[in-house]
Amino acid sequence: NAGKSQHNEDQACCEVVFVEQRPSPRGWLSSREGFYFHYWALFDGHAGSGAAVMASERLHLHICEAGSAEPNQVSSTEDHGEVPNDAVPRFHLEKAVSHESLVIGAIENAFKHMDDQIERERASQHLPGGCCALAAIYLMGKFYVANAGDSRAIIIRNGEIIPMSREFTPETERQRLQFLALLRPELLGKEFTHLEFPRRIQPKELGKKMLYRDQNMNGWAYKKIEEDDLKFPLIFGEGKKARMMATIGVTRGLGDHDLKVFSSNIHIKPFLSCFPEVRVYDLTQYEHCPDDVLVLGTDGLWDVTNDKEVAGVVMEVLMSYEPNDPCRYTMVAQELVVRSRGVLKERGWRLANDKLGSGDDISVFVIPLGGPGNYT
Amino acid sequence: NAGKSQHNEDQACCEVVFVEQRPSPRGWLSSREGFYFHYWALFDGHAGSGAAVMASERLHLHICEAGSAEPNQVSSTEDHGEVPNDAVPRFHLEKAVSHESLVIGAIENAFKHMDDQIERERASQHLPGGCCALAAIYLMGKFYVANAGDSRAIIIRNGEIIPMSREFTPETERQRLQFLALLRPELLGKEFTHLEFPRRIQPKELGKKMLYRDQNMNGWAYKKIEEDDLKFPLIFGEGKKARMMATIGVTRGLGDHDLKVFSSNIHIKPFLSCFPEVRVYDLTQYEHCPDDVLVLGTDGLWDVTNDKEVAGVVMEVLMSYEPNDPCRYTMVAQELVVRSRGVLKERGWRLANDKLGSGDDISVFVIPLGGPGNYT
Repeated sequence: NAGKSQHNEDQACCEVVFVEQRPSPRGWLSSREGFYFHYWALFDGHAGSGAAVMASERLHLHICEAGSAEPNQVSSTEDHGEVPNDAVPRFHLEKAVSHESLVIGAIENAFKHMDDQIERERASQHLPGGCCALAAIYLMGKFYVANAGDSRAIIIRNGEIIPMSREFTPETERQRLQFLALLRPELLGKEFTHLEFPRRIQPKELGKKMLYRDQNMNGWAYKKIEEDDLKFPLIFGEGKKARMMATIGVTRGLGDHDLKVFSSNIHIKPFLSCFPEVRVYDLTQYEHCPDDVLVLGTDGLWDVTNDKEVAGVVMEVLMSYEPNDPCRYTMVAQELVVRSRGVLKERGWRLANDKLGSGDDISVFVIPLGGPGNYT
Repeated sequence: NAGKSQHNEDQACCEVVFVEQRPSPRGWLSSREGFYFHYWALFDGHAGSGAAVMASERLHLHICEAGSAEPNQVSSTEDHGEVPNDAVPRFHLEKAVSHESLVIGAIENAFKHMDDQIERERASQHLPGGCCALAAIYLMGKFYVANAGDSRAIIIRNGEIIPMSREFTPETERQRLQFLALLRPELLGKEFTHLEFPRRIQPKELGKKMLYRDQNMNGWAYKKIEEDDLKFPLIFGEGKKARMMATIGVTRGLGDHDLKVFSSNIHIKPFLSCFPEVRVYDLTQYEHCPDDVLVLGTDGLWDVTNDKEVAGVVMEVLMSYEPNDPCRYTMVAQELVVRSRGVLKERGWRLANDKLGSGDDISVFVIPLGGPGNYT
């Protein structure tokens, strides 16, 4: 906790979760009893810790729920009803659905159900604000890393950095946000334009030519400035200062159902998506040594310590412990937090090189991929 | 031409284009006279060759037009008006726009202007149907490869394959199409559902559970089947047989302004995008030998000959000619066409291995990256 808020707005959860299998032919596993998955997650709250606290207590339960087989479902690949009269096979042209994509779908829907629960209970449970969510699920030899927001996950394998997530910000999601605003202009409440310009346009520039980007463009081109272009742009600012509707710097996450543009009745939520991007890493495809790890961190870490520096700290700290010492991963996580925080001086938090340290809450998981113990 | 149509529905263009610079501080180049770019493009027509023929004659002119500096524009990075009264810099927080992204924007808009021209002139010029478009532009040390459709470009450098495009089909663009259909359901004319299912659902399955994917999902999850889910899916079929609204197998391209779902009044065009994806390859970043090439091909080539096989033919043919023989690249292109076509036997076109040859028109450009001559 950086001291900017009384309660830590970063929250975390780490669990081994048992999924009880309901009798059905199409669960994640054919076993009737059930199965386990391992789970780690970070929640970076904003405008209060409420949403982050609730998500840290419940998201894994929603994943558990989504992962147990649905009763009364129609088998999608096996024919176990009567055969119809027509000559073509009943399930002609059926698409094969992999086990992996069922797990991904279950995680995606669990995020949605979590978001719905926050919406339902936000008044009674006092849950203002929202949170970014980053979760890693280990199941049957694979890591599923689900990210909604600006936290980040990387794997460090034999010194190599493998990104396991990408950040969702007004800049990275520009085209999705512009597309939505173009198709549903009423969501902008006459205050914003969905077009992007390199800077605010001044009224006296009406009729002149200006560079712009629309939702279907990656490059910039010229247009004649019209009245509508004088509105505030949907996306404005660069890097950490980029904001959607001048309000929020992340474009995915849980909660924020009451968030509006300042002194207006324009809701942010239709643009904020609760759906994560899920990346899969197949542990069985590679040999892993005890120094290979998956690192999850909130933006408090990544804002001041880049991927390469994190990999450096991981290697440096792990080297100073015996390979079979289970504490070594905890020590890496602590060292990453301490180095990114720095020391409180007169001019704020400072790093060893006197650069500005992170003024944000910082949370880190360091998960061994080839260390002592295993997840089965 | 495969013989399936009287006129070749594949069309091509190869030009050195001079862009006359209008006096302005912000063209692609500061030179007042102008500059050249090199241009190669393939157009794979469907439902007639009209759109492909027109695009092959005009697209480069639209790029030329978009690339010449606009008169009377507002400089976006230089301040050459009077300084306003307020204390902050006039162009505070201005985003820097690179030369590269101006070229990309010009190409993107040229595709749009080309599409608009086909729309305007389709009646008078008899331009039924549409076409996929793949264009490579060489300008100031960089290749810009713009693709709208299912043609493909690859670079072969020192035996390594570097993809320079991706195909736009109902499967690869599923989420964009579903998002549009979700936000504008009236475009589906009550005939289609934007959800994806692994197969058609039967009326008697109402109320049961079925796997589905929505626009914000990559995985599959279960839902209870409702009345709406019995409609025909927006995207149906797999691989080369995948269709949008049971009508078309590509989701980007030029033309098709009159295309409707069979025996209905539902227009395809709102879903078909004319905007290309532009990828950039910086020639100056690598050393190139005479065997390094950029290959552009319509799907007639790629359907039967994959990237690796194409790279094999390139190496095999180039080896049999002197490195400074300019004919060697033409011979590669011819060989690629001949091998993908095969020989007409009783059971259709057959390849050397007796597999089915391409029944489609085939067009190939083989462009040397480090051979004799240069583009400056």
